Amino acid sequence: MDGTTGGHPHFEHEIRVTWGDCDPAKIAYTARIPWFALDAINAWWETHLGGDGWFQMELDRNVGTPFVHMSLDFSAPITPRHRLICQVDPIDLGNSSIRFRVLGRQDGVLCFSGEFVCVFIVADSFSKQPVPSDIRTIVEPLLRPVGA
Amino acid sequence: MDGTTGGHPHFEHEIRVTWGDCDPAKIAYTARIPWFALDAINAWWETHLGGDGWFQMELDRNVGTPFVHMSLDFSAPITPRHRLICQVDPIDLGNSSIRFRVLGRQDGVLCFSGEFVCVFIVADSFSKQPVPSDIRTIVEPLLRPVGA
Amino acid sequence: MDGTTGGHPHFEHEIRVTWGDCDPAKIAYTARIPWFALDAINAWWETHLGGDGWFQMELDRNVGTPFVHMSLDFSAPITPRHRLICQVDPIDLGNSSIRFRVLGRQDGVLCFSGEFVCVFIVADSFSKQPVPSDIRTIVEPLLRPVGA
Amino acid sequence: MDGTTGGHPHFEHEIRVTWGDCDPAKIAYTARIPWFALDAINAWWETHLGGDGWFQMELDRNVGTPFVHMSLDFSAPITPRHRLICQVDPIDLGNSSIRFRVLGRQDGVLCFSGEFVCVFIVADSFSKQPVPSDIRTIVEPLLRPVGA
Repeated sequence: MDGTTGGHPHFEHEIRVTWGDCDPAKIAYTARIPWFALDAINAWWETHLGGDGWFQMELDRNVGTPFVHMSLDFSAPITPRHRLICQVDPIDLGNSSIRFRVLGRQDGVLCFSGEFVCVFIVADSFSKQPVPSDIRTIVEPLLRPVGA
Repeated sequence: MDGTTGGHPHFEHEIRVTWGDCDPAKIAYTARIPWFALDAINAWWETHLGGDGWFQMELDRNVGTPFVHMSLDFSAPITPRHRLICQVDPIDLGNSSIRFRVLGRQDGVLCFSGEFVCVFIVADSFSKQPVPSDIRTIVEPLLRPVGA
Repeated sequence: MDGTTGGHPHFEHEIRVTWGDCDPAKIAYTARIPWFALDAINAWWETHLGGDGWFQMELDRNVGTPFVHMSLDFSAPITPRHRLICQVDPIDLGNSSIRFRVLGRQDGVLCFSGEFVCVFIVADSFSKQPVPSDIRTIVEPLLRPVGA
Repeated sequence: MDGTTGGHPHFEHEIRVTWGDCDPAKIAYTARIPWFALDAINAWWETHLGGDGWFQMELDRNVGTPFVHMSLDFSAPITPRHRLICQVDPIDLGNSSIRFRVLGRQDGVLCFSGEFVCVFIVADSFSKQPVPSDIRTIVEPLLRPVGA
Protein backbone atom coordinates (compact mmCIF):
# COMPACT_ATOMS: atom_id res chain seq x y z
CA MET A 1 0.00 0.00 0.00
CA ASP A 2 2.81 2.37 -0.94
CA GLY A 3 1.26 5.79 -1.23
CA THR A 4 3.12 6.94 -4.28
CA THR A 5 3.29 3.95 -6.58
CA GLY A 6 0.86 3.76 -9.48
CA GLY A 7 1.86 6.83 -11.42
CA HIS A 8 -0.14 9.47 -9.57
CA PRO A 9 -0.08 10.88 -6.05
CA HIS A 10 -2.89 10.34 -3.58
CA PHE A 11 -5.45 13.09 -3.27
CA GLU A 12 -5.26 14.91 0.06
CA HIS A 13 -7.76 17.27 1.61
CA GLU A 14 -6.80 19.41 4.58
CA ILE A 15 -9.24 20.06 7.42
CA ARG A 16 -8.78 22.70 10.09
CA VAL A 17 -10.05 21.00 13.24
CA THR A 18 -11.37 23.53 15.74
CA TRP A 19 -12.47 24.01 19.31
CA GLY A 20 -16.07 23.60 18.19
CA ASP A 21 -15.33 20.17 16.72
CA CYS A 22 -14.10 18.93 20.10
CA ASP A 23 -16.03 17.49 23.00
CA PRO A 24 -15.21 17.75 26.72
CA ALA A 25 -12.58 15.00 26.28
CA LYS A 26 -10.68 17.68 24.25
CA ILE A 27 -10.72 15.59 21.08
CA ALA A 28 -12.91 15.76 17.99
CA TYR A 29 -16.35 14.33 18.73
CA THR A 30 -16.79 10.95 17.05
CA ALA A 31 -19.82 12.06 15.03
CA ARG A 32 -17.75 14.84 13.45
CA ILE A 33 -15.36 12.33 11.87
CA PRO A 34 -17.69 10.87 9.23
CA TRP A 35 -18.53 14.51 8.45
CA PHE A 36 -14.83 15.25 7.90
CA ALA A 37 -14.52 12.16 5.69
CA LEU A 38 -17.48 13.23 3.59
CA ASP A 39 -16.03 16.74 3.26
CA ALA A 40 -12.89 15.08 1.93
CA ILE A 41 -14.81 12.92 -0.56
CA ASN A 42 -16.74 15.98 -1.76
CA ALA A 43 -13.43 17.81 -2.21
CA TRP A 44 -12.15 14.82 -4.20
CA TRP A 45 -15.09 15.22 -6.60
CA GLU A 46 -14.57 18.99 -6.85
CA THR A 47 -10.94 18.46 -7.78
CA HIS A 48 -11.50 15.73 -10.34
CA LEU A 49 -14.77 16.91 -11.84
CA GLY A 50 -13.80 20.42 -12.87
CA GLY A 51 -14.91 22.06 -9.64
CA ASP A 52 -18.16 20.14 -9.34
CA GLY A 53 -18.93 18.65 -5.94
CA TRP A 54 -22.16 16.97 -4.91
CA PHE A 55 -24.05 20.26 -5.18
CA GLN A 56 -23.16 20.81 -8.83
CA MET A 57 -23.40 17.11 -9.69
CA GLU A 58 -26.99 17.10 -8.44
CA LEU A 59 -28.15 20.46 -9.79
CA ASP A 60 -26.14 20.79 -13.00
CA ARG A 61 -25.54 17.17 -14.03
CA ASN A 62 -28.64 15.50 -12.54
CA VAL A 63 -26.35 12.89 -10.98
CA GLY A 64 -26.71 11.84 -7.35
CA THR A 65 -24.37 9.54 -5.43
CA PRO A 66 -26.14 8.59 -2.18
CA PHE A 67 -24.21 6.53 0.35
CA VAL A 68 -25.27 2.95 0.95
CA HIS A 69 -22.45 2.02 3.32
CA MET A 70 -19.76 3.48 5.52
CA SER A 71 -17.31 1.80 7.84
CA LEU A 72 -14.70 3.53 9.98
CA ASP A 73 -11.99 2.45 12.37
CA PHE A 74 -10.66 5.02 14.81
CA SER A 75 -7.05 4.58 15.86
CA ALA A 76 -5.93 7.90 17.38
CA PRO A 77 -7.69 10.98 18.75
CA ILE A 78 -8.07 14.02 16.50
CA THR A 79 -7.32 17.45 17.98
CA PRO A 80 -6.90 21.05 16.81
CA ARG A 81 -3.12 20.75 17.39
CA HIS A 82 -2.52 19.73 13.77
CA ARG A 83 -4.36 19.97 10.51
CA LEU A 84 -6.22 16.76 9.63
CA ILE A 85 -4.96 15.46 6.30
CA CYS A 86 -7.52 13.23 4.63
CA GLN A 87 -6.22 11.00 1.86
CA VAL A 88 -9.01 9.99 -0.51
CA ASP A 89 -8.84 7.30 -3.17
CA PRO A 90 -11.48 5.51 -5.17
CA ILE A 91 -10.74 1.83 -4.63
CA ASP A 92 -13.47 0.19 -6.67
CA LEU A 93 -15.81 1.22 -9.47
CA GLY A 94 -18.73 -1.12 -10.12
CA ASN A 95 -21.43 -0.93 -12.72
CA SER A 96 -23.36 1.63 -10.73
CA SER A 97 -21.36 2.16 -7.58
CA ILE A 98 -18.10 3.60 -6.33
CA ARG A 99 -16.09 2.73 -3.23
CA PHE A 100 -13.78 5.25 -1.58
CA ARG A 101 -11.12 4.78 1.05
CA VAL A 102 -10.38 7.74 3.31
CA LEU A 103 -7.37 7.80 5.61
CA GLY A 104 -7.18 10.65 8.13
CA ARG A 105 -3.80 11.59 9.56
CA GLN A 106 -2.48 14.23 11.92
CA ASP A 107 1.23 14.92 12.12
CA GLY A 108 1.87 11.68 10.25
CA VAL A 109 -0.20 9.53 12.64
CA LEU A 110 -3.17 7.60 11.26
CA CYS A 111 -6.29 8.73 13.17
CA PHE A 112 -8.98 6.93 11.22
CA SER A 113 -9.47 4.80 8.15
CA GLY A 114 -12.78 4.39 6.43
CA GLU A 115 -14.50 2.91 3.44
CA PHE A 116 -17.54 4.44 1.84
CA VAL A 117 -19.80 3.08 -0.90
CA CYS A 118 -22.03 5.30 -3.02
CA VAL A 119 -24.44 4.37 -5.81
CA PHE A 120 -25.14 6.45 -8.86
CA ILE A 121 -28.67 7.68 -9.37
CA VAL A 122 -30.55 9.98 -11.70
CA ALA A 123 -30.98 12.80 -9.22
CA ASP A 124 -34.44 14.05 -10.12
CA SER A 125 -36.01 10.57 -10.23
CA PHE A 126 -33.89 8.96 -7.46
CA SER A 127 -33.49 5.91 -9.74
CA LYS A 128 -30.31 3.86 -10.01
CA GLN A 129 -28.16 4.38 -13.09
CA PRO A 130 -24.84 3.05 -14.42
CA VAL A 131 -21.79 5.18 -13.74
CA PRO A 132 -22.03 8.02 -16.29
CA SER A 133 -19.41 7.45 -18.97
CA ASP A 134 -17.63 10.78 -18.52
CA ILE A 135 -17.29 10.05 -14.82
CA ARG A 136 -16.06 6.51 -15.55
CA THR A 137 -13.40 7.94 -17.83
CA ILE A 138 -12.22 10.27 -15.09
CA VAL A 139 -12.33 7.78 -12.22
CA GLU A 140 -10.81 4.65 -13.78
CA PRO A 141 -7.23 5.93 -13.99
CA LEU A 142 -7.49 7.08 -10.36
CA LEU A 143 -8.51 3.70 -8.95
CA ARG A 144 -6.27 2.34 -6.22
CA PRO A 145 -7.18 -1.26 -5.59
CA VAL A 146 -6.58 -2.02 -1.91
CA GLY A 147 -3.61 -4.32 -1.41
CA ALA A 148 -2.35 -3.73 -4.95
CA MET B 1 -34.62 -11.26 15.35
CA ASP B 2 -38.05 -10.81 16.94
CA GLY B 3 -37.96 -7.48 18.72
CA THR B 4 -39.79 -8.56 21.82
CA THR B 5 -38.44 -11.99 22.70
CA GLY B 6 -35.88 -12.24 25.46
CA GLY B 7 -37.85 -10.85 28.34
CA HIS B 8 -37.37 -7.13 27.79
CA PRO B 9 -38.37 -4.70 25.06
CA HIS B 10 -35.84 -2.99 22.82
CA PHE B 11 -34.79 0.49 23.79
CA GLU B 12 -36.05 3.13 21.36
CA HIS B 13 -34.99 6.75 21.04
CA GLU B 14 -37.05 9.17 19.00
CA ILE B 15 -35.41 11.84 16.84
CA ARG B 16 -37.22 14.80 15.32
CA VAL B 17 -35.62 15.12 11.89
CA THR B 18 -35.79 18.69 10.65
CA TRP B 19 -35.32 20.92 7.62
CA GLY B 20 -31.82 21.73 8.83
CA ASP B 21 -30.85 18.04 8.84
CA CYS B 22 -31.72 17.75 5.15
CA ASP B 23 -29.62 18.51 2.11
CA PRO B 24 -30.79 19.74 -1.30
CA ALA B 25 -31.91 16.18 -2.16
CA LYS B 26 -34.58 16.79 0.52
CA ILE B 27 -33.35 13.91 2.70
CA ALA B 28 -31.19 13.87 5.80
CA TYR B 29 -27.55 14.49 4.90
CA THR B 30 -25.54 11.27 5.23
CA ALA B 31 -23.14 12.74 7.78
CA ARG B 32 -26.06 13.53 10.08
CA ILE B 33 -26.96 9.85 10.39
CA PRO B 34 -24.00 8.69 12.51
CA TRP B 35 -24.77 11.73 14.67
CA PHE B 36 -28.35 10.52 15.12
CA ALA B 37 -27.08 7.03 15.98
CA LEU B 38 -24.71 8.44 18.59
CA ASP B 39 -27.50 10.54 20.07
CA ALA B 40 -29.47 7.31 20.39
CA ILE B 41 -26.59 5.46 22.07
CA ASN B 42 -26.10 8.35 24.48
CA ALA B 43 -29.81 8.25 25.28
CA TRP B 44 -29.49 4.50 25.89
CA TRP B 45 -26.80 5.22 28.52
CA GLU B 46 -28.89 7.98 30.12
CA THR B 47 -31.82 5.60 30.44
CA HIS B 48 -29.90 2.66 31.85
CA LEU B 49 -27.35 4.51 33.97
CA GLY B 50 -29.67 6.56 36.13
CA GLY B 51 -29.69 9.60 33.87
CA ASP B 52 -25.97 9.56 33.16
CA GLY B 53 -24.94 9.95 29.54
CA TRP B 54 -21.39 10.39 28.24
CA PHE B 55 -21.11 13.79 29.90
CA GLN B 56 -21.83 12.50 33.40
CA MET B 57 -19.91 9.25 32.84
CA GLU B 58 -16.80 11.28 32.00
CA LEU B 59 -17.12 14.02 34.59
CA ASP B 60 -18.78 12.22 37.50
CA ARG B 61 -17.64 8.62 37.05
CA ASN B 62 -14.28 9.16 35.33
CA VAL B 63 -15.31 6.60 32.69
CA GLY B 64 -14.87 7.25 29.00
CA THR B 65 -16.12 5.06 26.16
CA PRO B 66 -14.44 6.27 22.97
CA PHE B 67 -15.46 4.68 19.69
CA VAL B 68 -13.00 2.44 17.89
CA HIS B 69 -15.33 1.33 15.10
CA MET B 70 -18.57 2.16 13.37
CA SER B 71 -20.24 0.57 10.38
CA LEU B 72 -23.52 1.65 8.82
CA ASP B 73 -25.70 0.47 5.97
CA PHE B 74 -28.22 2.89 4.56
CA SER B 75 -31.35 1.35 3.10
CA ALA B 76 -33.94 4.13 2.84
CA PRO B 77 -33.84 7.93 2.86
CA ILE B 78 -34.63 9.76 6.12
CA THR B 79 -36.93 12.79 5.94
CA PRO B 80 -38.78 15.13 8.32
CA ARG B 81 -42.09 13.44 7.34
CA HIS B 82 -41.84 11.00 10.25
CA ARG B 83 -40.02 10.77 13.54
CA LEU B 84 -36.87 8.64 13.30
CA ILE B 85 -37.13 5.78 15.79
CA CYS B 86 -33.70 4.45 16.73
CA GLN B 87 -33.65 1.03 18.35
CA VAL B 88 -30.50 0.54 20.40
CA ASP B 89 -29.24 -2.73 21.84
CA PRO B 90 -25.91 -3.78 23.27
CA ILE B 91 -25.01 -6.92 21.34
CA ASP B 92 -21.66 -7.83 22.85
CA LEU B 93 -19.76 -7.00 26.02
CA GLY B 94 -16.08 -7.88 26.02
CA ASN B 95 -13.49 -7.51 28.73
CA SER B 96 -13.08 -3.81 28.03
CA SER B 97 -15.40 -3.09 25.12
CA ILE B 98 -19.06 -2.88 24.21
CA ARG B 99 -20.74 -3.32 20.85
CA PHE B 100 -24.06 -1.65 20.05
CA ARG B 101 -26.46 -2.21 17.22
CA VAL B 102 -28.62 0.72 16.17
CA LEU B 103 -31.55 0.31 13.79
CA GLY B 104 -33.20 3.49 12.50
CA ARG B 105 -36.76 3.32 11.23
CA GLN B 106 -39.30 5.78 9.92
CA ASP B 107 -42.96 4.81 9.67
CA GLY B 108 -41.92 1.17 10.14
CA VAL B 109 -39.36 1.21 7.31
CA LEU B 110 -35.73 0.41 8.12
CA CYS B 111 -33.61 3.40 7.06
CA PHE B 112 -30.24 2.39 8.43
CA SER B 113 -28.60 -0.28 10.51
CA GLY B 114 -25.30 0.18 12.25
CA GLU B 115 -22.84 -1.39 14.61
CA PHE B 116 -20.65 0.61 16.95
CA VAL B 117 -17.78 -0.54 19.16
CA CYS B 118 -16.57 1.47 22.15
CA VAL B 119 -13.77 0.72 24.59
CA PHE B 120 -13.77 1.57 28.25
CA ILE B 121 -11.10 3.95 29.49
CA VAL B 122 -10.22 5.79 32.65
CA ALA B 123 -11.29 9.20 31.46
CA ASP B 124 -8.66 11.41 33.07
CA SER B 125 -5.73 9.20 32.01
CA PHE B 126 -7.17 8.01 28.67
CA SER B 127 -5.99 4.48 29.60
CA LYS B 128 -7.90 1.31 28.79
CA GLN B 129 -9.78 -0.37 31.64
CA PRO B 130 -12.04 -3.39 32.09
CA VAL B 131 -15.77 -2.74 31.98
CA PRO B 132 -16.56 -1.26 35.42
CA SER B 133 -18.43 -3.87 37.45
CA ASP B 134 -21.52 -1.74 38.12
CA ILE B 135 -21.83 -1.12 34.38
CA ARG B 136 -21.31 -4.82 33.62
CA THR B 137 -24.11 -5.67 36.04
CA ILE B 138 -26.44 -3.26 34.27
CA VAL B 139 -25.51 -4.19 30.70
CA GLU B 140 -25.36 -7.99 30.83
CA PRO B 141 -29.10 -8.59 31.18
CA LEU B 142 -29.70 -6.19 28.29
CA LEU B 143 -27.43 -7.97 25.81
CA ARG B 144 -29.10 -9.06 22.60
CA PRO B 145 -26.79 -11.38 20.73
CA VAL B 146 -27.34 -10.88 17.01
CA GLY B 147 -29.07 -13.84 15.42
CA ALA B 148 -30.16 -15.19 18.79
CA MET C 1 -43.35 40.03 30.97
CA ASP C 2 -45.40 37.58 33.02
CA GLY C 3 -45.28 34.29 31.17
CA THR C 4 -48.88 33.29 31.69
CA THR C 5 -50.94 36.43 31.15
CA GLY C 6 -52.65 36.94 27.84
CA GLY C 7 -54.94 33.94 27.80
CA HIS C 8 -52.57 31.29 26.45
CA PRO C 9 -49.43 29.63 27.75
CA HIS C 10 -46.04 30.10 26.14
CA PHE C 11 -44.91 27.44 23.74
CA GLU C 12 -41.98 25.43 25.07
CA HIS C 13 -39.69 23.08 23.19
CA GLU C 14 -37.40 20.73 25.09
CA ILE C 15 -33.87 20.01 23.89
CA ARG C 16 -31.70 17.19 25.17
CA VAL C 17 -28.24 18.75 25.29
CA THR C 18 -25.53 16.11 24.88
CA TRP C 19 -21.83 15.46 25.20
CA GLY C 20 -21.47 16.07 21.47
CA ASP C 21 -22.96 19.57 21.80
CA CYS C 22 -20.27 20.55 24.30
CA ASP C 23 -16.80 21.89 23.70
CA PRO C 24 -13.70 21.38 25.85
CA ALA C 25 -14.99 24.03 28.28
CA LYS C 26 -17.69 21.42 29.10
CA ILE C 27 -20.52 23.68 27.97
CA ALA C 28 -22.54 23.79 24.78
CA TYR C 29 -20.48 25.30 21.96
CA THR C 30 -21.73 28.79 21.14
CA ALA C 31 -22.48 27.95 17.51
CA ARG C 32 -24.85 25.16 18.64
CA ILE C 33 -27.11 27.68 20.40
CA PRO C 34 -28.59 29.40 17.34
CA TRP C 35 -29.15 25.84 16.04
CA PHE C 36 -31.10 25.00 19.20
CA ALA C 37 -33.13 28.20 18.84
CA LEU C 38 -33.98 27.37 15.23
CA ASP C 39 -34.99 23.85 16.23
CA ALA C 40 -37.35 25.45 18.72
CA ILE C 41 -38.83 27.83 16.13
CA ASN C 42 -39.31 24.94 13.72
CA ALA C 43 -41.07 23.00 16.49
CA TRP C 44 -43.27 26.04 17.10
CA TRP C 45 -44.38 25.94 13.45
CA GLU C 46 -44.97 22.17 13.60
CA THR C 47 -47.19 22.60 16.62
CA HIS C 48 -49.24 25.50 15.30
CA LEU C 49 -49.41 24.55 11.63
CA GLY C 50 -50.88 21.07 11.94
CA GLY C 51 -47.53 19.28 12.03
CA ASP C 52 -45.93 21.31 9.26
CA GLY C 53 -42.44 22.62 9.94
CA TRP C 54 -40.16 24.35 7.45
CA PHE C 55 -39.84 21.17 5.40
CA GLN C 56 -43.57 20.80 4.80
CA MET C 57 -44.11 24.57 4.47
CA GLU C 58 -41.57 24.65 1.64
CA LEU C 59 -42.52 21.43 -0.13
CA ASP C 60 -46.27 21.20 0.47
CA ARG C 61 -47.31 24.86 0.86
CA ASN C 62 -44.67 26.56 -1.34
CA VAL C 63 -44.00 28.98 1.52
CA GLY C 64 -40.48 29.82 2.63
CA THR C 65 -39.52 31.90 5.67
CA PRO C 66 -35.80 32.71 5.34
CA PHE C 67 -34.12 34.53 8.20
CA VAL C 68 -33.01 38.12 7.67
CA HIS C 69 -31.87 38.77 11.23
CA MET C 70 -30.93 37.08 14.45
CA SER C 71 -29.66 38.51 17.70
CA LEU C 72 -28.75 36.55 20.81
CA ASP C 73 -27.54 37.36 24.29
CA PHE C 74 -25.91 34.60 26.29
CA SER C 75 -26.30 34.83 30.06
CA ALA C 76 -25.46 31.39 31.46
CA PRO C 77 -23.65 28.31 30.17
CA ILE C 78 -25.71 25.42 28.77
CA THR C 79 -24.76 21.88 29.83
CA PRO C 80 -26.15 18.33 29.56
CA ARG C 81 -27.05 18.45 33.28
CA HIS C 82 -30.57 19.65 32.51
CA ARG C 83 -32.90 19.69 29.56
CA LEU C 84 -32.86 23.02 27.71
CA ILE C 85 -36.36 24.47 27.68
CA CYS C 86 -36.83 26.91 24.82
CA GLN C 87 -39.79 29.25 25.10
CA VAL C 88 -40.87 30.51 21.69
CA ASP C 89 -43.27 33.35 21.00
CA PRO C 90 -44.04 35.37 17.90
CA ILE C 91 -43.69 38.97 19.01
CA ASP C 92 -44.45 40.85 15.83
CA LEU C 93 -46.16 40.11 12.53
CA GLY C 94 -45.55 42.59 9.75
CA ASN C 95 -46.92 42.68 6.22
CA SER C 96 -44.44 40.05 5.05
CA SER C 97 -42.34 39.25 8.09
CA ILE C 98 -42.50 37.63 11.48
CA ARG C 99 -40.38 38.22 14.57
CA PHE C 100 -39.84 35.52 17.17
CA ARG C 101 -38.42 35.71 20.66
CA VAL C 102 -36.73 32.59 22.01
CA LEU C 103 -35.76 32.25 25.66
CA GLY C 104 -33.63 29.25 26.62
CA ARG C 105 -33.64 28.10 30.23
CA GLN C 106 -32.07 25.26 32.18
CA ASP C 107 -33.36 24.41 35.64
CA GLY C 108 -35.18 27.72 35.68
CA VAL C 109 -32.11 29.81 34.84
CA LEU C 110 -32.14 31.94 31.69
CA CYS C 111 -29.25 30.83 29.48
CA PHE C 112 -29.93 32.85 26.36
CA SER C 113 -32.49 35.19 24.88
CA GLY C 114 -32.81 35.82 21.20
CA GLU C 115 -34.84 37.57 18.55
CA PHE C 116 -35.22 36.24 15.04
CA VAL C 117 -36.82 37.87 12.00
CA CYS C 118 -38.02 35.88 9.00
CA VAL C 119 -39.62 37.08 5.79
CA PHE C 120 -42.26 35.24 3.84
CA ILE C 121 -41.43 34.19 0.30
CA VAL C 122 -42.94 32.10 -2.44
CA ALA C 123 -40.60 29.15 -2.07
CA ASP C 124 -40.14 28.10 -5.69
CA SER C 125 -39.50 31.64 -6.96
CA PHE C 126 -37.70 32.99 -3.83
CA SER C 127 -39.85 36.15 -4.17
CA LYS C 128 -41.21 38.08 -1.21
CA GLN C 129 -44.90 37.67 -0.42
CA PRO C 130 -47.34 38.95 2.20
CA VAL C 131 -47.98 36.67 5.15
CA PRO C 132 -50.36 34.00 3.79
CA SER C 133 -53.82 34.62 5.23
CA ASP C 134 -54.22 31.19 6.83
CA ILE C 135 -50.91 31.69 8.60
CA ARG C 136 -51.89 35.21 9.68
CA THR C 137 -55.08 33.82 11.17
CA ILE C 138 -53.11 31.28 13.17
CA VAL C 139 -50.32 33.58 14.31
CA GLU C 140 -52.21 36.75 15.30
CA PRO C 141 -53.81 35.34 18.46
CA LEU C 142 -50.43 33.98 19.53
CA LEU C 143 -48.60 37.30 19.32
CA ARG C 144 -46.86 38.37 22.53
CA PRO C 145 -45.77 41.97 22.15
CA VAL C 146 -42.61 42.49 24.16
CA GLY C 147 -43.19 44.61 27.22
CA ALA C 148 -46.96 44.19 26.99
CA MET D 1 -15.68 51.67 5.23
CA ASP D 2 -12.86 51.36 2.72
CA GLY D 3 -11.32 47.97 3.31
CA THR D 4 -7.73 48.94 2.87
CA THR D 5 -7.31 52.24 4.67
CA GLY D 6 -5.75 52.22 8.10
CA GLY D 7 -2.39 50.75 7.31
CA HIS D 8 -3.20 47.05 7.31
CA PRO D 9 -5.42 44.80 5.22
CA HIS D 10 -8.52 43.12 6.58
CA PHE D 11 -8.16 39.55 7.71
CA GLU D 12 -10.03 37.12 5.46
CA HIS D 13 -10.89 33.50 6.12
CA GLU D 14 -12.09 31.27 3.29
CA ILE D 15 -14.82 28.69 3.81
CA ARG D 16 -15.65 25.90 1.39
CA VAL D 17 -19.45 25.73 1.54
CA THR D 18 -20.68 22.24 0.69
CA TRP D 19 -23.75 20.19 -0.15
CA GLY D 20 -23.99 19.16 3.48
CA ASP D 21 -24.21 22.79 4.61
CA CYS D 22 -27.27 23.35 2.42
CA ASP D 23 -30.92 22.70 3.17
CA PRO D 24 -33.66 21.72 0.72
CA ALA D 25 -33.87 25.37 -0.43
CA LYS D 26 -30.41 24.71 -1.93
CA ILE D 27 -28.75 27.38 0.21
CA ALA D 28 -26.70 27.17 3.39
CA TYR D 29 -28.96 26.45 6.36
CA THR D 30 -29.30 29.56 8.54
CA ALA D 31 -27.92 27.84 11.64
CA ARG D 32 -24.70 27.03 9.77
CA ILE D 33 -23.93 30.71 9.29
CA PRO D 34 -23.06 31.63 12.90
CA TRP D 35 -20.90 28.48 12.81
CA PHE D 36 -19.07 29.81 9.75
CA ALA D 37 -18.62 33.19 11.47
CA LEU D 38 -17.16 31.54 14.57
CA ASP D 39 -14.82 29.46 12.42
CA ALA D 40 -13.63 32.73 10.93
CA ILE D 41 -13.12 34.37 14.34
CA ASN D 42 -11.20 31.31 15.54
CA ALA D 43 -9.03 31.53 12.41
CA TRP D 44 -8.44 35.20 13.19
CA TRP D 45 -7.08 34.24 16.62
CA GLU D 46 -4.93 31.46 15.11
CA THR D 47 -3.40 33.93 12.70
CA HIS D 48 -2.72 36.69 15.18
CA LEU D 49 -1.82 34.63 18.24
CA GLY D 50 0.99 32.52 16.78
CA GLY D 51 -1.21 29.65 15.72
CA ASP D 52 -3.31 29.58 18.89
CA GLY D 53 -7.05 29.36 18.43
CA TRP D 54 -9.63 28.88 21.18
CA PHE D 55 -8.35 25.36 21.87
CA GLN D 56 -4.79 26.45 22.62
CA MET D 57 -5.91 29.66 24.36
CA GLU D 58 -7.96 27.57 26.80
CA LEU D 59 -5.56 24.68 27.31
CA ASP D 60 -2.17 26.36 27.00
CA ARG D 61 -2.86 29.94 28.11
CA ASN D 62 -5.77 29.37 30.53
CA VAL D 63 -7.70 32.12 28.72
CA GLY D 64 -11.30 31.68 27.68
CA THR D 65 -13.35 34.09 25.58
CA PRO D 66 -16.99 33.01 25.85
CA PHE D 67 -19.54 34.84 23.75
CA VAL D 68 -22.06 37.08 25.46
CA HIS D 69 -23.69 38.46 22.32
CA MET D 70 -24.07 37.86 18.62
CA SER D 71 -26.13 39.70 16.04
CA LEU D 72 -26.35 38.86 12.35
CA ASP D 73 -28.11 40.30 9.33
CA PHE D 74 -28.54 38.05 6.32
CA SER D 75 -28.63 39.82 2.97
CA ALA D 76 -28.00 37.17 0.29
CA PRO D 77 -28.16 33.36 0.18
CA ILE D 78 -24.94 31.39 0.59
CA THR D 79 -24.33 28.47 -1.79
CA PRO D 80 -21.52 26.07 -2.73
CA ARG D 81 -21.09 27.95 -6.06
CA HIS D 82 -18.40 30.18 -4.59
CA ARG D 83 -16.06 30.13 -1.62
CA LEU D 84 -17.39 32.15 1.31
CA ILE D 85 -14.89 34.86 2.19
CA CYS D 86 -15.27 35.99 5.79
CA GLN D 87 -13.67 39.31 6.66
CA VAL D 88 -12.95 39.54 10.38
CA ASP D 89 -11.97 42.65 12.30
CA PRO D 90 -11.89 43.47 15.97
CA ILE D 91 -13.89 46.68 16.26
CA ASP D 92 -13.75 47.37 19.98
CA LEU D 93 -11.59 46.28 22.89
CA GLY D 94 -12.95 47.01 26.35
CA ASN D 95 -11.46 46.35 29.75
CA SER D 96 -12.43 42.70 29.63
CA SER D 97 -14.24 42.25 26.35
CA ILE D 98 -13.69 42.26 22.60
CA ARG D 99 -16.12 42.96 19.80
CA PHE D 100 -15.65 41.48 16.33
CA ARG D 101 -17.31 42.33 13.06
CA VAL D 102 -17.58 39.54 10.50
CA LEU D 103 -18.64 40.22 6.91
CA GLY D 104 -19.32 37.18 4.71
CA ARG D 105 -19.14 37.58 0.94
CA GLN D 106 -19.46 35.30 -2.05
CA ASP D 107 -18.27 36.43 -5.45
CA GLY D 108 -18.08 39.99 -4.10
CA VAL D 109 -21.67 40.03 -2.82
CA LEU D 110 -22.28 40.63 0.89
CA CYS D 111 -24.20 37.63 2.27
CA PHE D 112 -24.19 38.42 5.96
CA SER D 113 -22.77 40.89 8.43
CA GLY D 114 -22.46 40.19 12.09
CA GLU D 115 -21.15 41.50 15.37
CA PHE D 116 -19.92 39.28 18.16
CA VAL D 117 -18.93 40.17 21.71
CA CYS D 118 -16.73 37.95 23.85
CA VAL D 119 -15.52 38.43 27.42
CA PHE D 120 -12.18 37.34 28.76
CA ILE D 121 -12.15 34.79 31.55
CA VAL D 122 -9.64 32.72 33.45
CA ALA D 123 -10.47 29.41 31.80
CA ASP D 124 -10.10 27.03 34.72
CA SER D 125 -12.10 29.16 37.12
CA PHE D 126 -14.59 30.63 34.61
CA SER D 127 -14.03 34.04 36.27
CA LYS D 128 -13.91 37.34 34.39
CA GLN D 129 -10.50 38.89 33.85
CA PRO D 130 -9.09 41.98 32.12
CA VAL D 131 -7.79 41.50 28.59
CA PRO D 132 -4.38 39.83 29.07
CA SER D 133 -1.69 42.38 28.28
CA ASP D 134 0.03 40.34 25.56
CA ILE D 135 -3.32 39.97 23.81
CA ARG D 136 -4.07 43.69 24.22
CA THR D 137 -0.74 44.50 22.61
CA ILE D 138 -1.57 42.31 19.64
CA VAL D 139 -5.18 43.41 19.20
CA GLU D 140 -4.96 47.17 19.62
CA PRO D 141 -3.17 47.90 16.33
CA LEU D 142 -5.71 45.73 14.52
CA LEU D 143 -8.79 47.56 15.79
CA ARG D 144 -11.08 48.88 13.08
CA PRO D 145 -13.61 51.22 14.66
CA VAL D 146 -16.85 50.99 12.70
CA GLY D 147 -17.54 54.13 10.72
CA ALA D 148 -13.97 55.32 11.12
